[in-house]
Amino acid sequence: MAEKIVKVGLVGFGTVGCGVAKLILEEGQRIAAKTGLRLELACVVDTDTESPRPVRLPAGILTNDINRLLNDDSIQIGVELVGGTDAAKDVQLKMLEAGKDVVTANKALIAEHGNELMHCAHRNNRCIAFGASCAGGIPIVSSIRTGLTANNITAMYGIVNGTCNYILSEMTSKNEDFSEALAQAQKKGYAEADPALDVSGGDSAHKLAILASIAFGYEIKLDDIFVEGIEAISKVDIRYGGEMGYVLKLLAIGQKDKDGRISLRVHPSFVAKDSPLARVDGPFNAVSIFGSAVGQVMYYGRGAGMMPTASAVVADIIDVAIGNSATTFRHLHLKPRSEVELLIEKIGNCVSRFYIKVLAKDQPGVVSSYSRILGDHHISISGALQHEGRGPDNTVPVVITTHPTQQKNVTAALGELEQLDVLSGKPVCIRIVDIPEDKD
Amino acid sequence: MAEKIVKVGLVGFGTVGCGVAKLILEEGQRIAAKTGLRLELACVVDTDTESPRPVRLPAGILTNDINRLLNDDSIQIGVELVGGTDAAKDVQLKMLEAGKDVVTANKALIAEHGNELMHCAHRNNRCIAFGASCAGGIPIVSSIRTGLTANNITAMYGIVNGTCNYILSEMTSKNEDFSEALAQAQKKGYAEADPALDVSGGDSAHKLAILASIAFGYEIKLDDIFVEGIEAISKVDIRYGGEMGYVLKLLAIGQKDKDGRISLRVHPSFVAKDSPLARVDGPFNAVSIFGSAVGQVMYYGRGAGMMPTASAVVADIIDVAIGNSATTFRHLHLKPRSEVELLIEKIGNCVSRFYIKVLAKDQPGVVSSYSRILGDHHISISGALQHEGRGPDNTVPVVITTHPTQQKNVTAALGELEQLDVLSGKPVCIRIVDIPEDKD
Repeated sequence: MAEKIVKVGLVGFGTVGCGVAKLILEEGQRIAAKTGLRLELACVVDTDTESPRPVRLPAGILTNDINRLLNDDSIQIGVELVGGTDAAKDVQLKMLEAGKDVVTANKALIAEHGNELMHCAHRNNRCIAFGASCAGGIPIVSSIRTGLTANNITAMYGIVNGTCNYILSEMTSKNEDFSEALAQAQKKGYAEADPALDVSGGDSAHKLAILASIAFGYEIKLDDIFVEGIEAISKVDIRYGGEMGYVLKLLAIGQKDKDGRISLRVHPSFVAKDSPLARVDGPFNAVSIFGSAVGQVMYYGRGAGMMPTASAVVADIIDVAIGNSATTFRHLHLKPRSEVELLIEKIGNCVSRFYIKVLAKDQPGVVSSYSRILGDHHISISGALQHEGRGPDNTVPVVITTHPTQQKNVTAALGELEQLDVLSGKPVCIRIVDIPEDKD
Repeated sequence: MAEKIVKVGLVGFGTVGCGVAKLILEEGQRIAAKTGLRLELACVVDTDTESPRPVRLPAGILTNDINRLLNDDSIQIGVELVGGTDAAKDVQLKMLEAGKDVVTANKALIAEHGNELMHCAHRNNRCIAFGASCAGGIPIVSSIRTGLTANNITAMYGIVNGTCNYILSEMTSKNEDFSEALAQAQKKGYAEADPALDVSGGDSAHKLAILASIAFGYEIKLDDIFVEGIEAISKVDIRYGGEMGYVLKLLAIGQKDKDGRISLRVHPSFVAKDSPLARVDGPFNAVSIFGSAVGQVMYYGRGAGMMPTASAVVADIIDVAIGNSATTFRHLHLKPRSEVELLIEKIGNCVSRFYIKVLAKDQPGVVSSYSRILGDHHISISGALQHEGRGPDNTVPVVITTHPTQQKNVTAALGELEQLDVLSGKPVCIRIVDIPEDKD
């Protein structure tokens, strides 16, 4: 069968850019045999045209002039791999206006300016494919948009940041402090020199914004998401939680109730040891989705890295080239902000279970004043753990877990606990997330 | 935005048919809001128009006359949910020739007559969407065909039959015999009254044929697949395997080597206890896929049942309606049989590890004659287990596990072992499958 040639221009020749170039150059023939499409790398644009890279481009392809891409009408698809939100946004807008379809792995940009970019694409009768922006190589975006369309998606629970999952796995398995595990992650290339965006939960929030938009069909903004990072997590709490049957994960959570109200949050979460997400270790990602018809579906794989992300970018290039992305893009209707604003649940109203640790001074009356405050705020205790013997400053760590209660009750109780002079320091509070079991 | 009306006709009003009708009737509005497509159930064809069903159709829709579907040009999509291969094939061919696109969950038909049906579809410029045929609600077919297109897929390991997985899980966790666990599965609705197709591995082979075709890009025939069922599995071997660190699963395995040779097999398989597939219990399905760029990706969910399968059928209906299935279908190029024939690895050449149990008579010289035969056939022992004390007939069960070796060596050795008069009965042989770990 005759092959159709599809010319592709890349902007950004960093790690993922190199992976994409490598895949197109090395796997082009196999892709052509399987799909009838011959991908051709027409140009690669980067300000740095000198540094050595792990892939060898044919002569004359690498340039620092984006106009070579914009002005070449034979280039159908522009791939933005610049990263960040300023220059990258400009690149995407220019490519759309120049009549190119856009493929991107830029989650920050899509999460922050997705609506504006989508409108620009619609105006120019082009599409943006962003499957690589969430969970790297795991084809989760296309699965939600095609495989699960018939479902009313009611919840998603995702481990979508490999850096945080690696750090928490190390802290758990090796009893390491956060700083030790972070250093190790940096050494292994799982964390950037500046890890702030990852460990703060910001990167997970970007991905949740994108996944929740397409799963729930709502225009989501980053501000809709409550975010708490893992920087303050102590190995002691991971250990105590472990003794009570839990593993600590940074989860991105989206839930929709029967009235369409949604709760979106990223925070450290204790999950039951035997739940499938608890077993996702190291740099791996996994997302569990609950659909009205399908029940629970889980996806597992590498959420980052040169080749896994490149795998998703090239899949999107092919999907754009055969014309399916444009169709999917046209048929993705999101409920507009004016309606969505009213449906976002405030974090204070979210119901969760909680792990609360206080350092109690070793004197009479501690337990009663502590538990009275919890009771006053309608917080019911589900489990407790207090080891015999003393901790630092002659205090004893007391851990309790609660039954489900609203966040605002716990916030109020924590404020009062802080004032108690029989307790030392600030209480530690970590949410416990009971992922529903899809069982018969 | 204006809704586009898409008229759908169903043939087969059994379990899945009821689920599909229910989804279209109950979720139609939500699907329209999200995609702009209003699915309309134009007619439902079944020979039985009398029996009560768990879904209430609008008046006048149910009919026993397939011509109402075939002759109605406003019906764009025909859904074949008849099951089996004879009448169903006729229905699909007639629908294609009448100009309908076809959606089906019929794995047996696609596995056995897929090539003929695909050719008929191409001739009539129509498409067949069969995403629901494999692994029910898990969107695995679309993931392979879109999300993983950039990858050279080198292996897949799947638990794709919920009946067998439920039976093996019960045998493992409750120390039940095959017949007890089967009866329990039938009682819970996880096994049919005639369970032969499931427990023989035949159903898994159907799914493997379909998944391997699209993953490897080869025209696969059922005959290419080596199949062994779970009927002869004894709980004793599950227990001994467990003591050695393994869990027994019925796996559908497809492997491709660097020369493009492929090995396709369905058989009971001991997998390491800590591998992700080992933890897939009960009626759930999971498929692990290894891609050259993405590494390991795993999908997990319900592989059968009314609503999970209906979820996949309706997803395909939407994909056909927006036009993407037709495009994907046109771009799916399979290597033709003439080339594939030469690339199928014979089971005898397949390399595996093995669990072998013999019943040894309690007399001198047993171990030496036993191990001499293994050595003669280049089979190297990796582990051994022999409990003290006697078994039935004054024999002692001796279990060994082997290092990787070709199937034909083991087959030859087993033949000789059977003749040994210091052993009682036939040796038991179960393959051990080491699923590669995608770790750094």
